[in-house]
Amino acid sequence: MICVLSGGVGAARLLRALSEYDPALDLRAVVNVGDDLVMHGLQICPDLDTITYTLAGLNNEEQGWGLTGETWRVMQELGALGGDAWFGLGDRDLATHLYRTQRLHAGSNKTEVAAEIAHHFQLGVDLLPATNDPLATEFHTEVGILSFQEYFVRHHHDVVVTSIDFRGAAAARLTSQAAEALRDADRIVIAPSNPLISIGPILAIPGVREALRERRDDVIAVSPIIGGAALKGPADRLLRELGHDVSPVGVARYYRDLVGTMVIDEVDVELRASIEELGLECRVTTTIMKNPDHARHLAAVVMA
Amino acid sequence: MICVLSGGVGAARLLRALSEYDPALDLRAVVNVGDDLVMHGLQICPDLDTITYTLAGLNNEEQGWGLTGETWRVMQELGALGGDAWFGLGDRDLATHLYRTQRLHAGSNKTEVAAEIAHHFQLGVDLLPATNDPLATEFHTEVGILSFQEYFVRHHHDVVVTSIDFRGAAAARLTSQAAEALRDADRIVIAPSNPLISIGPILAIPGVREALRERRDDVIAVSPIIGGAALKGPADRLLRELGHDVSPVGVARYYRDLVGTMVIDEVDVELRASIEELGLECRVTTTIMKNPDHARHLAAVVMA
Repeated sequence: MICVLSGGVGAARLLRALSEYDPALDLRAVVNVGDDLVMHGLQICPDLDTITYTLAGLNNEEQGWGLTGETWRVMQELGALGGDAWFGLGDRDLATHLYRTQRLHAGSNKTEVAAEIAHHFQLGVDLLPATNDPLATEFHTEVGILSFQEYFVRHHHDVVVTSIDFRGAAAARLTSQAAEALRDADRIVIAPSNPLISIGPILAIPGVREALRERRDDVIAVSPIIGGAALKGPADRLLRELGHDVSPVGVARYYRDLVGTMVIDEVDVELRASIEELGLECRVTTTIMKNPDHARHLAAVVMA
Repeated sequence: MICVLSGGVGAARLLRALSEYDPALDLRAVVNVGDDLVMHGLQICPDLDTITYTLAGLNNEEQGWGLTGETWRVMQELGALGGDAWFGLGDRDLATHLYRTQRLHAGSNKTEVAAEIAHHFQLGVDLLPATNDPLATEFHTEVGILSFQEYFVRHHHDVVVTSIDFRGAAAARLTSQAAEALRDADRIVIAPSNPLISIGPILAIPGVREALRERRDDVIAVSPIIGGAALKGPADRLLRELGHDVSPVGVARYYRDLVGTMVIDEVDVELRASIEELGLECRVTTTIMKNPDHARHLAAVVMA
């Protein structure tokens, strides 16, 4: 059994690569909920949904986000009505949020709803929200404190961040399902997601760092930084603003006490020695998963 | 200034007729909120929305409910997902519910949101929810206690009702805007809405019956029963099941202490004497408003 600490797009692609590499694999994703938000009264879980849509083959691969065949009628009408339409919710996507919200109102928790949705789409991967308790990633910035989606979507992650806070994390409890996955996994993989704001919120839940530290040799992380930049999103900018090296070495240093092995891209092969000097093993392969062959290679390296 | 106690479709047509009859009229609708529900986390106000869409010219006149040019993408996807899709919410309609829910979450009340929506659609009629407090119409039936929409939509109002309860009504406060409309109106009109479940919840709010009783001579009601049947909905069946005459006389008896004048349809002209015997004045005209000429006649009679 493999447990993958997961953010959104990068994690979704790694999970897809792993499940295609070995369809019989017991694969469990412990998923970040720090981006979750309530919008228009609807409970939205962006990372869970990105993984769900990707594994279901419904993600818009060209666009890089959202669903195939998406339509935007509700948002068009909401915009016309003068409503808050900056956070785009497609009609197809909205159905997921209505479903989840209805089930939560009926007394289910995020873990149960995620399992129902995964079952509906026959995903073959267990999607486990890291916690069912409130946990919200917040950005302290030059324009004030911003919620995740205000920073990410409304401001296009184009403001200077001075610090990141995971509100609620200290009191949040890892779900029993996520705890079991971390404890029983043959290998724990940290997906090539943003270390600070996708993996960070999971690590901020009491007990997670300890669980990884105890099994450091079984923990392998895939660097989301390739050739000095993030493939997607503000990981590079945030690492820089918060004083980290924008390189796989910076990522290795950030994960140092939790991770036994780093996987880095071939373009960064000359950084292998620096990572090994930090006391981590290092494997080098192609890590850009847009190419299915490369995705298979990466899966093979992670599973080796 | 005319104040109209309003349910959904019948009230919407009367309000449209009155505002077309005299565009300069200060027209204020005190609207039933007993049907309001939270579905998928969204605050839905069916009577307010029916009136809004009708006055905005967006209602689907042929179908008798819903919006013109409506699409159903979200519901289709929700149904495919195994979600609760028995209460149909069109994509265009959903935008209203998202807008309202977002504004309520931001701290506004239903009165403020209704005013914003009315302003957006330039309705020319003040839409005043009767109360901003919780008030829910419930049906005690042969299959248990049902919420309004469970009775109306899910069971197609095809179960035997033994009693109706307006949960929360005793503690609900008439809004100051609705109270002002009732106090200052030159005439108070009770729309041809269901007396028991559209007007009943408004009358159940403390102070409303007293306000009408004090000004009984200024109160005029349009019978929703024509020729022994309701034009739409279960008013006839409910009146019968709860021991009332299914006729304008039954309606007059129900409103007797609150209403000075009843307006009945020409087909019921022979009931005029029975209504007058109850101590009400009675006016006879065409009351079916699908025909614009008839609607104008009715408006003229109500305003006379």
